[in-house]
Amino acid sequence: MTDHFRFTVAATDGVARTGEIRMPRGVIRTPAFMPVGTAGTVKAMYPEQVKALGADVVLGNTYHLMLRPGAERMARLGGLHAFMQWPYPILTDSGGFQVMSLSGLRKLDERGVTFRSHIDGTAHELTPERSIEIQGLLGADIQMQLDECVRLPAEREAIARAMQLSLRWAERCRAAFGEQPGRALFGIVQGGDVPALRAESARALVGLDLKGYAIGGLAVGEPQATMLAMIEATEPHLPVTKPRYLMGVGTPDDIVQAVSRGIDMFDCVMPTRAGRHGMVYTRFGRMNLRNARFAEDNTPLDPESACPAAHLYTKAYLHHLVRAGEILGMMLLTWNNLSYYQDLMAGLRRAIAAGRLQDFIGETREGWARAERDRGERDRGARDPGGSAGA
Amino acid sequence: MTDHFRFTVAATDGVARTGEIRMPRGVIRTPAFMPVGTAGTVKAMYPEQVKALGADVVLGNTYHLMLRPGAERMARLGGLHAFMQWPYPILTDSGGFQVMSLSGLRKLDERGVTFRSHIDGTAHELTPERSIEIQGLLGADIQMQLDECVRLPAEREAIARAMQLSLRWAERCRAAFGEQPGRALFGIVQGGDVPALRAESARALVGLDLKGYAIGGLAVGEPQATMLAMIEATEPHLPVTKPRYLMGVGTPDDIVQAVSRGIDMFDCVMPTRAGRHGMVYTRFGRMNLRNARFAEDNTPLDPESACPAAHLYTKAYLHHLVRAGEILGMMLLTWNNLSYYQDLMAGLRRAIAAGRLQDFIGETREGWARAERDRGERDRGARDPGGSAGA
Repeated sequence: MTDHFRFTVAATDGVARTGEIRMPRGVIRTPAFMPVGTAGTVKAMYPEQVKALGADVVLGNTYHLMLRPGAERMARLGGLHAFMQWPYPILTDSGGFQVMSLSGLRKLDERGVTFRSHIDGTAHELTPERSIEIQGLLGADIQMQLDECVRLPAEREAIARAMQLSLRWAERCRAAFGEQPGRALFGIVQGGDVPALRAESARALVGLDLKGYAIGGLAVGEPQATMLAMIEATEPHLPVTKPRYLMGVGTPDDIVQAVSRGIDMFDCVMPTRAGRHGMVYTRFGRMNLRNARFAEDNTPLDPESACPAAHLYTKAYLHHLVRAGEILGMMLLTWNNLSYYQDLMAGLRRAIAAGRLQDFIGETREGWARAERDRGERDRGARDPGGSAGA
Repeated sequence: MTDHFRFTVAATDGVARTGEIRMPRGVIRTPAFMPVGTAGTVKAMYPEQVKALGADVVLGNTYHLMLRPGAERMARLGGLHAFMQWPYPILTDSGGFQVMSLSGLRKLDERGVTFRSHIDGTAHELTPERSIEIQGLLGADIQMQLDECVRLPAEREAIARAMQLSLRWAERCRAAFGEQPGRALFGIVQGGDVPALRAESARALVGLDLKGYAIGGLAVGEPQATMLAMIEATEPHLPVTKPRYLMGVGTPDDIVQAVSRGIDMFDCVMPTRAGRHGMVYTRFGRMNLRNARFAEDNTPLDPESACPAAHLYTKAYLHHLVRAGEILGMMLLTWNNLSYYQDLMAGLRRAIAAGRLQDFIGETREGWARAERDRGERDRGARDPGGSAGA
C-alpha cells in the first residue's frame, strides 16, 4: 500500500488505457466501475458482496449524506468507511448535481447554492468550501469539486456561464482541499454539448494541476453520439498521466464506447436501479424479467457467471420474485447486474492489456445482439399458431 | 439419511423434549423454528443464509403459491425446493388460514371453501383434497390438513362446529394423502379457547394416527395466558412419540413458554416482518431502531453473536438505514432476527438435553429484562439536564 494517491498506466490500446490508482485504502483497477452507494449503502447489497464482485471503490452522494445522517454526525461516528463497513476507497460527488435535481427552492449564485432538503424541508447552503469540508468529514478518498451542470439543450451563453462558474469553484475547492497526500480532489470538465467549451474547460482545469479530471454534465438524456463527441472533444486536452472519470455513465454500451475513447472511471445507478425494477444486464443483453415469456423459463441468467444470482436461480424464479414484489428479487437482480458490470470492466482491462480492445467490444456487442435476435425469433414462434406454446 | 419420516426424542425435561425428525431431505432438530417463506422466499434473505443460521426447515404458504406462480406451474418447474433453491425440508400450510384472512368473497361449506384471489380477483376453490393435491404439486415434505379457524372471541357453538368440520376435513386429507413414506401429513387441533373442545379435537385426531399434530387457531390476538392454557389442555392428549407444532407462534417469550409445555415446532412471521419495520430481537430484548436514541450509538446489536448483522454494523448505521428506508436495513435486521431466533432454539435444545430448561428460561428472560431496564435508565439520564446530551 501507499501513503499517496498514485495513478499508473500499465498498457494502452489506442487512447484506451488500463492501469491502477494506488491509495492508502486500496488499489483501484482501471477502467473501473464504481457502484453507487447513495445513502451509505449500495442498495440491496451487503458490502462484502460488492467487494467480492470486483468493485475497488464505491461512490457516496454528498447531498444525501449531508442531510442524513449529516456530515458532522458522520465524522463523530468515525466516518463513512466505518459506518458502511467499506474499508476500501470511496469517491464522493460534490452534492451539486443532486441539489439541482432533487431539492426544492434552490438559489444559485457566485457564492454557492442554497436549497431545502427533500427529506424535511430544512434550509442548507452548499459552497465550494462547504462541499469540500463535508467530503472531508465523510472521509472520502476521492473528492469532487462543486460544479454547475446545465440541463441540455441549453443556450451556448448559459452553458459557457455555468462552465466558467465551475472553473472558479474548482479553484476555491482546490484552496479548501489544500494538501491531503493520501486523498485526491478531481476537477470536473463542463461545457454542455459545445466542443469548444469542453476544450476550454479541460485546459483551464489542467492548469490547476488536480489529481484527476471528470467529465460532467453528460448522461442527462442527450443522444449517445453527443456524449461520445464530448468525450472526444475533451480527451486530447487531458494529461495521459491523470485518471479520467465520466460521471453518471452508463449502459454497458456507453461504457465500452467511452473506454475506447480514453475514460478510466465510471459510476452509474443503472445496474442497481434497474435491478430493483426487474431489469437485468447479461452477456446476452438486457432483459425485463417481468415479461411473461420468463414464467416457465427454467434456465439461469448466465450459467457461466461466477455470481450465484446469475447461475443458481432460474429465470422463472426471478420472474416470480419480481412479479410478487419480493425483496429477494431486488437483491438477486442487483447482484447479477453489478456482477455483469464488474465482469465487463475486467474484460475491458484484459482486452486493453492484450491489445485487442476493438475485438473485445465487437464480440461483446455481438453477444448482446445475437441473444436479442434469438429472443425475438422465439417470440415470433410463440405467437405463431404452428409454434410451441408460449407461457 | 432415511427414506421415511421418523421422529425421535433424545431427551426430556418435564414435558419439554429435544430430538429430531429425520426425513429424506434432511434432519430437523427440535424444538425447531421454521422461518416463513410465504411466496417461495424468506423475505430479504438468501436461502443459504437461512440454512447457515441453523434453520432445518422453512414454511411455504399454499394460499400464496397456488395463486402465484400456481401449483401446476410449480410442478412443471420441478417443485418448490428447486424453485427457491432450498433442498432441505419444507412444510406447507393448507392454505385455509390465509383464505380466511386475505382473500375476498369467501364461501365455506362442508365441501371446502371458495374465494377470490387477493392478487387478481380470480375465483378458486380449496377442498381438503385439493389442498393436499396442491401441497403435493409443490413438493412439500410436511403437509397440513385443511382446517377452519374461528376468530376469537367466538361462541362455543361456533368453535365446536368449526372444530368438528376440521376433524371431518382431517379424515378427507388423510385419505387424499394416502401413503407417502418420506413425507408427512399433520393434523391440526382446533377448539378455540375452550379446553374441553381442544381435548376432544386432540383425541379424535390421534385416532387418525397421523405423523404429527399441530395446534392451530392460536396466536390470533388472544392473551398469552390463553394460548398457554390451550397448550396445556391439549398436550396430555397428544402421543409423546409424535412431533407437536404450534402454528403461527410467536415472540421469543411465547416460544420458550410453549417449549416448556411440550411443543416441538414453531413458525412465525415475527422475526422477518419485524425486521422489515425497524424492530430487532436480541439477547438484550426487543429494540425499535427507528428510535432517535440510536442515532449516535456506535455499538453493535450483539458483539457475541456469530451473525454479521449483529456484530459487524453499529446501531447508528442500522438506525440510518431504517430511517432512510434502505433495503439493506431490512436485510440486516431480518438476518439478525432470524439469527436470534435460531440461537434461542439452539439454546433451548441444549438446555433440555442438560436438564436445565427452567434455568435457561430464567436467564434468558432476565437478559431481556435487565437490558430493557438499563435502556430505560439511560433514557431518563438523557432527559435529565445534568445528563449527557441525547442525540
